Amino acid sequence: MKLVIANKAYSSWSLRPWILMRALGIPFDEDLIPLDTPEFRPRVDAYGAGRTVPILVDGDVTVWESLAIMDYLADRFPQKAVWPADIKARAFARTIAAEMHAGFRPLRSACPMNLRKRYAAKDRGQDVASDVARILHLWRQARERFGADAGGPFLFGAFTAADAMYAPVVARFQSYSIPVDPDIRAYMDAVLDHPAFSEWQDAGMKEAWIVEHDEVDEPQVGPFRG
Amino acid sequence: MKLVIANKAYSSWSLRPWILMRALGIPFDEDLIPLDTPEFRPRVDAYGAGRTVPILVDGDVTVWESLAIMDYLADRFPQKAVWPADIKARAFARTIAAEMHAGFRPLRSACPMNLRKRYAAKDRGQDVASDVARILHLWRQARERFGADAGGPFLFGAFTAADAMYAPVVARFQSYSIPVDPDIRAYMDAVLDHPAFSEWQDAGMKEAWIVEHDEVDEPQVGPFRG
Repeated sequence: MKLVIANKAYSSWSLRPWILMRALGIPFDEDLIPLDTPEFRPRVDAYGAGRTVPILVDGDVTVWESLAIMDYLADRFPQKAVWPADIKARAFARTIAAEMHAGFRPLRSACPMNLRKRYAAKDRGQDVASDVARILHLWRQARERFGADAGGPFLFGAFTAADAMYAPVVARFQSYSIPVDPDIRAYMDAVLDHPAFSEWQDAGMKEAWIVEHDEVDEPQVGPFRG
Repeated sequence: MKLVIANKAYSSWSLRPWILMRALGIPFDEDLIPLDTPEFRPRVDAYGAGRTVPILVDGDVTVWESLAIMDYLADRFPQKAVWPADIKARAFARTIAAEMHAGFRPLRSACPMNLRKRYAAKDRGQDVASDVARILHLWRQARERFGADAGGPFLFGAFTAADAMYAPVVARFQSYSIPVDPDIRAYMDAVLDHPAFSEWQDAGMKEAWIVEHDEVDEPQVGPFRG
């Protein structure tokens, strides 16, 4: 299998299937196409797939859109717990994944993922605050209704596609110093401490590319973590 | 089961799970909450689900986001072909459904679904044209690679969740007189002629509500069809 992605420092959509595959131990090669370079468009178009990354190539099957890639992996590897096994937990996991897939545009626009930066907490407007409150509500619901009983620190206990969908949001909450309660902080730390997240972030730190429109003009208050 | 929806004349997101459930013969009650009325927000919020419709209530399971509702139905009714049975066809169906779930915003913004109106073809800008071209490409790919061999006039042969996701787009292409080739016209007619679509549209025609921001200020060139 080959996963086509963009820069690890910035590409939140690429992170989603990548961290899921790493976390579940699904082997793959990667093809990294740097954003905002002349090669990006022709190299993506050469796959004859979506208009952007990520793209998964598995023999003669090409899948794009991170949510569809995850569902394909669930079909392809039924022994891997891509989604929670319980039908009610799975329904909630897919619901919050779908809400992420199409939503939270104010947060995504105001707080681009940037794994090399940490900024101070500040008021980023009512729409961003509303997105943050909604995400905290969904995470807490998942933990309280399913994750806490299932064992494991993730939304539904073990790491699933729902955590993969929200991993870039965890990274944003970290970068932009969003204030959170201890239960949410514990969940965020579980994601940020996951070996797959660390591997991705370490690679992002070493990238030389700077994507200007994802760089926020605010003073840094420290490294991404610590 | 209960499906919570909004006005049939306008609510493209509500149409998606509704037409799928009708087409597959899954029985349900409906709770229609009219858009842009004082009752909309409190009645939606009372479900403790998503911030908008559709919402599916099945006993103690509440699911929202049309894509997650469809996947829940696939889990709940494995004997119903919510998605194509073949793994490659299913991967492509889910891919184009996910692309619809998060995309085509220029088209959705410029051409709101309105099952009571038909407008003349006109240039609606490059972004809308790009969305239309992309959708035509995806429909044609589905038909040529999967639908034609499977039998049946829909994207993957029989009516699946992929057709349900694009049913409001078919309605938009009809309302805004988007020029299409005969193969695409045949697909659109298959959707528009489906008894479930007709039932939904007939009900929409009888609704008294007018949602001003979904009414385009252009002369009508005839009824929705004919």
